[in-house]
Amino acid sequence: MEIIPGPLLKTIDSPADLKKLPREKLHQLCDELRQYIIDVVSVYGGHFAASLGVVELTVALHYIYNTPYDQLVWDVGHQAYGHKILTGRRDTFITNRKYKGISGFPKRSESDYDTFGVGHSSTSISAALGMAMAAKYKGETNRKVIAVIGDGAMTAGLAFEGMNHAGVADNDLLIILNDNCMGIDPNVGALKEYLTDITTSPTYNKVKSNVWKLLGKLPVGKHFTRKMAHKLVGGTKAMVSSSANLFESLKLRYFGPIDGHNVAKLVDTLRDLREIPGPKILHIITTKGKGYALAEKDQTKWHAPGLFDKITGEIQKKKFDLPQPPKYQDVFGHTIIELAEKNEKIFGITPAMPSGCSLKFMMEKMPDRAFDVGIAEQHAVTLSAGMATQGMKVFCNIYSSFMQRAYDQVIHDVAIQNLPVIFCLDRAGLVGDDGATHHGAYDIPYMRCIPNMVVSAPMNEAELRNLMYTAQLESTKNPFVIRYPRGEGVLSDWKTEMKEIKIGTGRKLKDGQDIAILSLGHPGNFAAAAIRDLKNEGLNPAHYDMRFAKPLDEELLHEVFHRFKKIITVEDGTIKGGFGSAILEFMNENNYNAEIKILGIPDRIVEHGTPKELQHECHYDAEAIKAAALEMMRGKVAVSPPVLG
Amino acid sequence: MEIIPGPLLKTIDSPADLKKLPREKLHQLCDELRQYIIDVVSVYGGHFAASLGVVELTVALHYIYNTPYDQLVWDVGHQAYGHKILTGRRDTFITNRKYKGISGFPKRSESDYDTFGVGHSSTSISAALGMAMAAKYKGETNRKVIAVIGDGAMTAGLAFEGMNHAGVADNDLLIILNDNCMGIDPNVGALKEYLTDITTSPTYNKVKSNVWKLLGKLPVGKHFTRKMAHKLVGGTKAMVSSSANLFESLKLRYFGPIDGHNVAKLVDTLRDLREIPGPKILHIITTKGKGYALAEKDQTKWHAPGLFDKITGEIQKKKFDLPQPPKYQDVFGHTIIELAEKNEKIFGITPAMPSGCSLKFMMEKMPDRAFDVGIAEQHAVTLSAGMATQGMKVFCNIYSSFMQRAYDQVIHDVAIQNLPVIFCLDRAGLVGDDGATHHGAYDIPYMRCIPNMVVSAPMNEAELRNLMYTAQLESTKNPFVIRYPRGEGVLSDWKTEMKEIKIGTGRKLKDGQDIAILSLGHPGNFAAAAIRDLKNEGLNPAHYDMRFAKPLDEELLHEVFHRFKKIITVEDGTIKGGFGSAILEFMNENNYNAEIKILGIPDRIVEHGTPKELQHECHYDAEAIKAAALEMMRGKVAVSPPVLG
Repeated sequence: MEIIPGPLLKTIDSPADLKKLPREKLHQLCDELRQYIIDVVSVYGGHFAASLGVVELTVALHYIYNTPYDQLVWDVGHQAYGHKILTGRRDTFITNRKYKGISGFPKRSESDYDTFGVGHSSTSISAALGMAMAAKYKGETNRKVIAVIGDGAMTAGLAFEGMNHAGVADNDLLIILNDNCMGIDPNVGALKEYLTDITTSPTYNKVKSNVWKLLGKLPVGKHFTRKMAHKLVGGTKAMVSSSANLFESLKLRYFGPIDGHNVAKLVDTLRDLREIPGPKILHIITTKGKGYALAEKDQTKWHAPGLFDKITGEIQKKKFDLPQPPKYQDVFGHTIIELAEKNEKIFGITPAMPSGCSLKFMMEKMPDRAFDVGIAEQHAVTLSAGMATQGMKVFCNIYSSFMQRAYDQVIHDVAIQNLPVIFCLDRAGLVGDDGATHHGAYDIPYMRCIPNMVVSAPMNEAELRNLMYTAQLESTKNPFVIRYPRGEGVLSDWKTEMKEIKIGTGRKLKDGQDIAILSLGHPGNFAAAAIRDLKNEGLNPAHYDMRFAKPLDEELLHEVFHRFKKIITVEDGTIKGGFGSAILEFMNENNYNAEIKILGIPDRIVEHGTPKELQHECHYDAEAIKAAALEMMRGKVAVSPPVLG
Repeated sequence: MEIIPGPLLKTIDSPADLKKLPREKLHQLCDELRQYIIDVVSVYGGHFAASLGVVELTVALHYIYNTPYDQLVWDVGHQAYGHKILTGRRDTFITNRKYKGISGFPKRSESDYDTFGVGHSSTSISAALGMAMAAKYKGETNRKVIAVIGDGAMTAGLAFEGMNHAGVADNDLLIILNDNCMGIDPNVGALKEYLTDITTSPTYNKVKSNVWKLLGKLPVGKHFTRKMAHKLVGGTKAMVSSSANLFESLKLRYFGPIDGHNVAKLVDTLRDLREIPGPKILHIITTKGKGYALAEKDQTKWHAPGLFDKITGEIQKKKFDLPQPPKYQDVFGHTIIELAEKNEKIFGITPAMPSGCSLKFMMEKMPDRAFDVGIAEQHAVTLSAGMATQGMKVFCNIYSSFMQRAYDQVIHDVAIQNLPVIFCLDRAGLVGDDGATHHGAYDIPYMRCIPNMVVSAPMNEAELRNLMYTAQLESTKNPFVIRYPRGEGVLSDWKTEMKEIKIGTGRKLKDGQDIAILSLGHPGNFAAAAIRDLKNEGLNPAHYDMRFAKPLDEELLHEVFHRFKKIITVEDGTIKGGFGSAILEFMNENNYNAEIKILGIPDRIVEHGTPKELQHECHYDAEAIKAAALEMMRGKVAVSPPVLG
């Protein structure tokens, strides 16, 4: 289906074209850009509401600033669709998030306009400050650096650390706070309440008008001197300090809030601010989903709605004749409630992912026992540790790639003290169209190297429930990782009775000959499929679902190594130091000797695509397992050379 | 040498004894406690200035609060010596930080009074909030929770994340901000300037007096109701908001600043605050090193001075007849200047460790190119990444265990974009008397699993210089880890000419028979010593200094595996997924077969002691390497059992 951009948008191949437009045409361009995003995303999918919310800002930024010489850093980046469309990617935008297509986030290798690769939140201030410091050092005094960050991202500690430095580093840095009261879910926390106070305070708005009047009177422009600026700042500060004080406290000059959907005002404001030296923050108020009524109304649902009919707003759902397996997420979400109803020590914590990880069910049902702490992974983990010291059993649910943010807290606050916090690592493995920044590729090695840590992965929904059940038992004394992928499991009848799994025990799913396949977690299903296929080739491998990367089931492994000289390991994690390496360590420690083929995520950055496409590319899907088994049996094994030394 | 506590301190075996003292005796107790710390630390060593600074606070807290039922969380914890002495550890305090002695930090397994294990900074607010939330949920309405955090620790993002949640969670939580303008080095950043503004502002001090007058008039006590408190808060807020606004912005009721060395005032204030519900912050001003003049004057030097003459203040230095090897830290500190003098793209960044890592030399000499960004590891890494996008070559120096704080930034902001940031991981390996929280035990697996990453370790000073030289070359396109231990290297004549090392190449230090020892980094010296010893036993192992855990020197390894069937690997990192495992992966991929003994840090929490004691305990010192080689040659190797399957 061909999607035709509007008459103005059609002419914009780069910001240079945009700059040729008269200011009064910008409103129309915004309409066309918004429509183009709606047209494309409704048919091709992707993030939606965030980009609609910054259409005017995007146009104004590229209109005023000399991109890409001026460095524009988008925080998180799922709101950068307009930016991509205006910077030479209008026609390739239909490949957004598709395998081999353009990325759903800014990406340095994709465009000079993408100054910093993003995906995780809250990095923009630090990255932009680094750029500004380098520019200053190199004497590029006319180079401007702008970070655009949402109020949700502002709650993460990294953003605060960046501001704490930016406030005292004398660099030309503009932070634009895009305040829409939302992350993916509604934003939470004291900062959010503070921003709401500012925005709704009538005193504040009066003060603000005065500031802008003052600005209007000043000869802003190229010859606006630093001294003059300092005077201005003095005046501004005095007037806004009673309300805009948090940022001023951090020595950032605060401007705003202004309407982020008034493109003319944005253009004027940015033109002024461009000439004001030093670190400063512009607070703009936007509506996530702006211009698409349904998205404005239910912003979480329309964050990334999938395909939809743009006229009726009906979101496409696949239809099936038979009951389908649930998402692992929902199994987690319902199971934690079941467990919490029986075990009053259970709490649920998630940093800003209540919808994504389905803790929202418990938050609705047990609001005093389940919490969204905002984008604050570090806090989520240390908070859980604090609760655990009081005997609580906390399920701390964090996506695998976001858990990287709380790695020290896992080691220092949980594992060293051996507190029995339960880490549910959602989005483990290759996550799909979010791509490189979101793949849960590293958690097996980064968790396995920590003493006291239990690292497990369920092969299906029933196993997830059993692991959750086991983790919350009073007899479980260790921190406990349960990693599972995004999306559907394999059991449509998933609400199985829960039973304890002895920690560090796997299970033999199928006996066999010649080859043993050891799988960890969901890829066990790929192994099972491969084994079914291999039957036709006359091969009959054994299959062990090991369940635990740590501790390993040594009894089972002794059986395996006694019986098999050919072993395939399969995991949806990196092959450097992961589950397969743990098997090698066991083999080495116990002086076994076998040919082992380790299948998993290769040691390179894997881009976006569907999980199936990527699993295929990474050679750990059923086809790859089958091929590995056949290869092993073809006797192509190199023989260890003789010892010469 | 027996150290005798003062007459009052002698009677204090627990806070219950302290509570029996009349209020007017507390001043004397503070004097005695301070003297006891001076007496013990001057003779037995340890952290010094921080504990002196909180003597009055410590006494007041245990006097007013019902510890350990009330939960007292010390941030970082190197200031908790007074706390340890007052809570039953007066007589064991002389074993502080000694092998098998008490820990230099609060530690849950050591005492019920140590509510949360610490060592790294900025965890206290989140942990305390978790405790307060659990207490509230359990209906323990009379249980108080107090976090004591320094202004240095307050700059880390985790502290901000904790406050952002604490402000809106309705829990009885008191945060005490111990403001001494210091971390180990002087504190930096906007927040620090803000706190100084508050403290020195005459307007502020006037307002403060009013607040306290108001407080004095109110019937604070057990029957002080929530409603009354809210009224008070309204009044307080109005009066302090013009200056104390940052914390009030985060919905924390702000009190202070007050003199943290006036124990009577602290007692009165804490007694009042104990009855005020909700989240609140008390800002106290203290002097690090208080009561020991030299320490007050040079707080960085006296943070942990080593042994000293308490009368003259002379710090003991070991005397040597011959020139001694320098610390790796100083080699880094001088070498980066040498390199930066020739390569104008070089920057140096450290988060709050300029003295510890010796970046201070460059900060003094090139203040526009070397920065301490405060306790903000995440920011340090993303800032470095931002600079790297502009072509800069940034040496980002962070202790190995602190780098855990910036793990996501390493992956997401550096490695995925393949930016050539240079990470100098100081304090890699077993760090010594700081113990479990500070051991750099995990970085090899957690770095090795990241694509694009180079992971190296120098065996000596010359190698460190060569690796630094190599990392900053324009031809080096990857992120580059250089890990090295705390303390002295091995070359007294260290200022060698620098030369490029081809990335991923090791070196054969010594040829030999029967056994090959593959070492990574500094433990190569232990291997060399073992080999010298083994000569007497008639053994002659070969020795390879592999230099890189990633990429491995495959050419060299092919030689090793062609020639040797017995291999020992040695590293000062965990054996789970580390360098030894990388060697196993290579062996497996290439279908070699050898007996490999992997020496390194075992998979358990290692406590404190001298590095030598701990290396011995962990079996990777020269003696252990020697024993492993002898064991291998005794033919005690189990034979791989026959294949039955």
